[in-house]
Amino acid sequence: MKIGIIGSGNVGGALGKIRGKNGHEIMFSSRNREKIKTMAEAIGKNACYGLPAEAARFADIVVLAVPWGQAKSALLSAGPLNGKILIDCTNPLKPDYSGLAVGGTTSAAEELAKLAPGASVVKAFHTTFAALMQSDSRMFGSTNPTGFYCGDDSAAKKVVADLIKETGLEPLDVGPLSYARYLEPMAMLMISLGFAQKMGTNIALKF
Amino acid sequence: MKIGIIGSGNVGGALGKIRGKNGHEIMFSSRNREKIKTMAEAIGKNACYGLPAEAARFADIVVLAVPWGQAKSALLSAGPLNGKILIDCTNPLKPDYSGLAVGGTTSAAEELAKLAPGASVVKAFHTTFAALMQSDSRMFGSTNPTGFYCGDDSAAKKVVADLIKETGLEPLDVGPLSYARYLEPMAMLMISLGFAQKMGTNIALKF
Repeated sequence: MKIGIIGSGNVGGALGKIRGKNGHEIMFSSRNREKIKTMAEAIGKNACYGLPAEAARFADIVVLAVPWGQAKSALLSAGPLNGKILIDCTNPLKPDYSGLAVGGTTSAAEELAKLAPGASVVKAFHTTFAALMQSDSRMFGSTNPTGFYCGDDSAAKKVVADLIKETGLEPLDVGPLSYARYLEPMAMLMISLGFAQKMGTNIALKF
Repeated sequence: MKIGIIGSGNVGGALGKIRGKNGHEIMFSSRNREKIKTMAEAIGKNACYGLPAEAARFADIVVLAVPWGQAKSALLSAGPLNGKILIDCTNPLKPDYSGLAVGGTTSAAEELAKLAPGASVVKAFHTTFAALMQSDSRMFGSTNPTGFYCGDDSAAKKVVADLIKETGLEPLDVGPLSYARYLEPMAMLMISLGFAQKMGTNIALKF
């Protein structure tokens, strides 16, 4: 499949690397042109790079993996996503990482879905650390972490479930997109445990 | 230890049963006098029952295990809890179970802590299903679920960690009481998976 990745951080990098290895075509996009050039060259023939709007046009699946503060502008710069699958990997952290900026009566995923009304939005790849997804193995002893995801379009979710499986995680469809209201705080818990509680990033949840 | 349980539902029942077997003294309390009488008699010599205020006076540890709609009034009817450990097992569900009634900038645990300023509040026993805690075994294959908890008083948390271990769960201190803002939505996710998504109650999370 053709996958456009918006964001040049750890999450986008980890996903791009795994996707490229599995024979998908990747286009990286970011404001940091030098970084995505390096990322694409490291993958080789299956990867290229461009502007967010180019990545969106190129892709069947658009992966949004930027900090929350840039998520809305990055999404808008990608242009219309009608008929595309949009994988929202964001965690809506406050700028000082002290908590969630969105929650309770809505979620980052639902807010982004409003901005991309033609896309099939799936929340995924935000509950496991990028460092874990970039490491050589996803195994903890004999088990692998759960890759939680949610969305309203079952065909899009099936595609994303396959991508999660390729990443070495055990896909778990938790329900409609509004369940991001629970997945996002759960991810915030993991982030807080990893950093504020100093447990590190080699931690994960198994359902 | 002397444990006062406020609430005659599944959670209170499961905790009381396990605690009584482990030699703790239990006092059940609830508006449903007949039910707590039956519950206490089923446990036998280590268990009795009374009014919430009697259970609170009797106990070193007060377990609050009622529906969220009754939590504040139940807590107030228990009277002052100065010097006691209060284990908050509530999940702040909306009356129609469609989502969380509290969240984002606060949590049920923090709201209850304001009502019981002299107590050491620990959030615990709300992320695993009562049915699981009541079953013969807590094992999933060779592993047991995580018993997540949080609170601001480390001595109180140590006591609660031992109770979690006795319940057959693996205790995990996730941090200060404000982390209930993340644990409560995570519990809501599990509740939604169990009921709305019809996965049943034999599900759990392992950290």
